Amino acid sequence: MSSFIFSFDDPAVQSYAFYSGVLALKTLGMSVLTAKVRHSKKVVANEEDAKLDKKAVIKFDDPDVERVRRAHLNDLENIPAFWLLGGLYLTTGPPASTAINLFRVYTAGRIVHTLVYAIKPLPQPARGIAYGIPFFIMVFMGVKVIIYYSKSL
Amino acid sequence: MSSFIFSFDDPAVQSYAFYSGVLALKTLGMSVLTAKVRHSKKVVANEEDAKLDKKAVIKFDDPDVERVRRAHLNDLENIPAFWLLGGLYLTTGPPASTAINLFRVYTAGRIVHTLVYAIKPLPQPARGIAYGIPFFIMVFMGVKVIIYYSKSL
Amino acid sequence: MSSFIFSFDDPAVQSYAFYSGVLALKTLGMSVLTAKVRHSKKVVANEEDAKLDKKAVIKFDDPDVERVRRAHLNDLENIPAFWLLGGLYLTTGPPASTAINLFRVYTAGRIVHTLVYAIKPLPQPARGIAYGIPFFIMVFMGVKVIIYYSKSL
Repeated sequence: MSSFIFSFDDPAVQSYAFYSGVLALKTLGMSVLTAKVRHSKKVVANEEDAKLDKKAVIKFDDPDVERVRRAHLNDLENIPAFWLLGGLYLTTGPPASTAINLFRVYTAGRIVHTLVYAIKPLPQPARGIAYGIPFFIMVFMGVKVIIYYSKSL
Repeated sequence: MSSFIFSFDDPAVQSYAFYSGVLALKTLGMSVLTAKVRHSKKVVANEEDAKLDKKAVIKFDDPDVERVRRAHLNDLENIPAFWLLGGLYLTTGPPASTAINLFRVYTAGRIVHTLVYAIKPLPQPARGIAYGIPFFIMVFMGVKVIIYYSKSL
Repeated sequence: MSSFIFSFDDPAVQSYAFYSGVLALKTLGMSVLTAKVRHSKKVVANEEDAKLDKKAVIKFDDPDVERVRRAHLNDLENIPAFWLLGGLYLTTGPPASTAINLFRVYTAGRIVHTLVYAIKPLPQPARGIAYGIPFFIMVFMGVKVIIYYSKSL
């Protein structure tokens, strides 16, 4: 197995850093979106929050708030796994252009997922496709990582 | 403190990469399992999903779906912390065999956790043990990391 | 772009390792806190857990348990993003003292967040401030990362 050291001079590593950063900010944006929908629907989750706004009620089943929260949880189920798998995938020595395109499509897919799930709900299969393509990119990278490192076990 | 550079030629780093990849794919598998249980119980979370299947109903308290979702959330509470702690633990210069065995037992524990929680529910303390052993491995690694780096604060 | 290799001899990298480890253990502590509150309130989520304690009931809306779980989920929404963004931010060559202070304030903020949310609930804006400061630190680091690596796209 050839030597690999993570170098941030490598274009594929730079691409990973850029898209991982974009995905992190996108995920953090879900908190802002939740706050915005909570504010417009006057729905909060805690007593101390209800005291801030006389019109707000404590409620755990507002459909608009819960939709944004499901989209956020879906990010948590996927994006940290991308950070790990994307980084490890780079260590297996893929062609830079392949890695960069996978990161790009992954990021685009997750942004579209948020749009069609939480911003402007669209009929299926919009969300299914926006979920599935990034999902299979992760499976691809994960299988590559496992095969590559299973040789050294 | 001696110099440490993450080298993917190091057997312990290779072991970390392999088991982290396995844990990532295992966690992603929880989404597939949720989809499978949702399909067999005809339970969905969104209006646009209900339109795909005439027999499906929107429901948030199906016991089988919620059980898989709890197992998935438990992965999110644990596995990203392992990715971080396992990687940092390696930088503290542990014996390779210790590190490799911890990663191995951790991964086995988390797979058993999924089996006894979401696939074939078993009486306690099966899940408690499958949860506790990986948990204490993370605490061990975390304490090692904090002690090691507290010297350089 | 100058060459960057992650060196654990760098004081800013050591600070990142230390505070990331602290945040990991803090997040793991939320599981212990949930277990403690579940035990004192006799509230469980699974049939097999109810069998362990004759007085326990399966319940998903206990306000004390749910409060701890919301604080835990809030950690999952924030802390893995810090691990990623903090690490990538270091690769952009910030002044060590800036990076170290950001990591320190971030960690303090998240610990205070847990205290005022889950341990001893305080009136707002206590939680808002303890949430907001770490949040803006992540946004700052994320924007720095994206700007830095967008040059190499």
